Amino acid sequence: MTRTRTREECAALDAADPLAGFRAEFSLPEGVIYLDGNSLGALPARTPERVRELVEVEWGRQLIRSWNEAGWFELPRTLGGRLAPLVGAAPGQVVVCDTTSVNLFKVLAAALRLRPGRRTVLAEEAAFPTDLYIAEGVTGLAAGARSVLLPSAADLDRVLDQDVAAVVLSHVDYRTGELLDMAGITRRVQQAGALMIWDVCHSVGALPIELDACGVDFAVGCTYKYLNGGPGSPAFLYVAERHQAAAEQPLSGWFGHARPFAFEPGYEPVAGIGRFLTSSPSLLGQAALGASLDVWEKADLQAVRAKSLALTGLFIELVEPLGLEVVTPRQVDRRGSQVALRHPDGYPVVQALIERGVIGDFRAPDLMRFGFTPLYLSYQEVWDAARHLAEVLESGEWRAERFSRRGAVT
Amino acid sequence: MTRTRTREECAALDAADPLAGFRAEFSLPEGVIYLDGNSLGALPARTPERVRELVEVEWGRQLIRSWNEAGWFELPRTLGGRLAPLVGAAPGQVVVCDTTSVNLFKVLAAALRLRPGRRTVLAEEAAFPTDLYIAEGVTGLAAGARSVLLPSAADLDRVLDQDVAAVVLSHVDYRTGELLDMAGITRRVQQAGALMIWDVCHSVGALPIELDACGVDFAVGCTYKYLNGGPGSPAFLYVAERHQAAAEQPLSGWFGHARPFAFEPGYEPVAGIGRFLTSSPSLLGQAALGASLDVWEKADLQAVRAKSLALTGLFIELVEPLGLEVVTPRQVDRRGSQVALRHPDGYPVVQALIERGVIGDFRAPDLMRFGFTPLYLSYQEVWDAARHLAEVLESGEWRAERFSRRGAVT
Repeated sequence: MTRTRTREECAALDAADPLAGFRAEFSLPEGVIYLDGNSLGALPARTPERVRELVEVEWGRQLIRSWNEAGWFELPRTLGGRLAPLVGAAPGQVVVCDTTSVNLFKVLAAALRLRPGRRTVLAEEAAFPTDLYIAEGVTGLAAGARSVLLPSAADLDRVLDQDVAAVVLSHVDYRTGELLDMAGITRRVQQAGALMIWDVCHSVGALPIELDACGVDFAVGCTYKYLNGGPGSPAFLYVAERHQAAAEQPLSGWFGHARPFAFEPGYEPVAGIGRFLTSSPSLLGQAALGASLDVWEKADLQAVRAKSLALTGLFIELVEPLGLEVVTPRQVDRRGSQVALRHPDGYPVVQALIERGVIGDFRAPDLMRFGFTPLYLSYQEVWDAARHLAEVLESGEWRAERFSRRGAVT
Repeated sequence: MTRTRTREECAALDAADPLAGFRAEFSLPEGVIYLDGNSLGALPARTPERVRELVEVEWGRQLIRSWNEAGWFELPRTLGGRLAPLVGAAPGQVVVCDTTSVNLFKVLAAALRLRPGRRTVLAEEAAFPTDLYIAEGVTGLAAGARSVLLPSAADLDRVLDQDVAAVVLSHVDYRTGELLDMAGITRRVQQAGALMIWDVCHSVGALPIELDACGVDFAVGCTYKYLNGGPGSPAFLYVAERHQAAAEQPLSGWFGHARPFAFEPGYEPVAGIGRFLTSSPSLLGQAALGASLDVWEKADLQAVRAKSLALTGLFIELVEPLGLEVVTPRQVDRRGSQVALRHPDGYPVVQALIERGVIGDFRAPDLMRFGFTPLYLSYQEVWDAARHLAEVLESGEWRAERFSRRGAVT
């Protein structure tokens, strides 16, 4: 393995790392180098106690009274307000609720209504597929609407016409790790009269996001990747304040009503972002996310971004000599916080790495993905991961039969 | 207080209660008589440990591997299969996912597509409002559809015409506790060519439900009331096997795809009930529900129903002499598992009871609701609750100023 940096140099980087103290905020298993925090973030150390308190005290002892006394009813808004700085949103524009797919359905339907003369939703073919499927679902139900796939975000200007109501794009590509230019693309979409919806699942917690400053119309994202909310933790959505009074969404459950406890037969949306709520959130999920946001509130996003670029840059530098195609852009302004490497036998290679304790993942047909989470990953771990990858490839151990069997979730 | 049964007689009923042993399966606070399990069920004793295992082991130590190794990906189907006997459903027709509101949106949209020449959704004005709001939402988005409110389920035959695509009704009324005739109403709706959707939120776990035997088309329900899944625990939906091949729903996220891990750009629903899934479930919520179903799998629903009727009957018998209007039907075949009493000052009366440790709830404008959960409630507690109610009314203590202040959730 050829490399430009030594493990000792990485140890020096760790010693100087202003985020090094955050590692103690997470509970990670011994012997694991976790490069899959872009898929499921690690467990914050204080989450178990917070969840225990929710289950045993707020639910078990306080029972129904917790809806008032423990602030359960307000939690989707409270957590939204706490999450807002992570996406560059002023207060009153973010709620934590449902799943990314459900939230995308809401904002797409709202966007179509805000652009009544326009019937096309544009999405990128390379997007995480649930975004495309939801665009199909909502346009299939709404009269005359259709969803159109862009071969790539680069085709946007060619396709943007007066029928486009909304464009939905991923801020960071889930496979390649490519970061799009939020400000520039938002501006071009809006100049064409359409509304811009960003899916920030793969960027929130990985880098600073500036929804307000970029003039974004809507955004959706999940909290179980970089934000460490836990498996299937609640998603969030952002609706720019200027759209809220006119925005209507069809998942109009009682939590979005102006007077939910008046139990009126007709729906009347509450003023503000609350009209994008539908019904009771998972309180266990919301409690776990609250514990994670306790950690995030102490993190400087500029420092997170700087370390993220340093970690991904280091990994690229270390694995380049192995002869794999590095799919992720090398330009720092086009890179999220993951590195994708192409290998025709990527699946068994990733399995062999997992056996060694280096956990990344695989995306068909041939991409090995490695996510870099600045709060709990060290430079030395990145160095060790690259060494393991070199050894797996050089030894050919990935050819063992046991690495070729696929589980339900590959 | 005049009454027909003594506390000693209630003690004898408890001693002979075949379900008495279930009380030990729940963790309830001292000094509380909990009559709100129809709103938020009590904490099963083994739930904290199951949630701890999910958080600390499956998430914290196994991390992303749990999607395969801990069966996370299959959990919405696994839990659906375990819940199915509680609603009288053969395997393959129930999944646990999202919320009741979101699931109702899915099945209403599917029903409209299955009846393309018909554009009306009928719902009962007295239904829990989120059902009405969602009917508004889905018909507002679907071309030409409309939702129409029935003054009462009794008006059904008058209103059922050839434009009705679907009827959605609550099996048990959330305010009055009235139980509708599932078999008879389903038959009449289907004879008129429409599809029948039952909301079983207030009946599941309170009495045996026979979705298959009644020939029901669709059903939705929650798991945080009688089923003790925890606050905001995941909901479920039922789609009769005969509809599954043709049924399409617009919340078409990747969990409902035929090949979710092929990451294809076009949506193709998986065969079977799985096409009603949308995206990642809250694993914390699903784990808690699993622990609760461990208890339910040991419960005989006929015994649950018998004790439920005995408890509600006893309460009605004990409070009748107090001169309150008993809104809940006295006929056993028209009664769910709650008793609603009308009182112009119901709100402060309920607050005064809560201060005494008797937890019921209030529904505007004037209903006091008391839910009876046969697995963890004794006859003596019912007797004590009735005595407290009598004392609160006789003493006038509910007139104290502190009982008139309302929280966000009343």
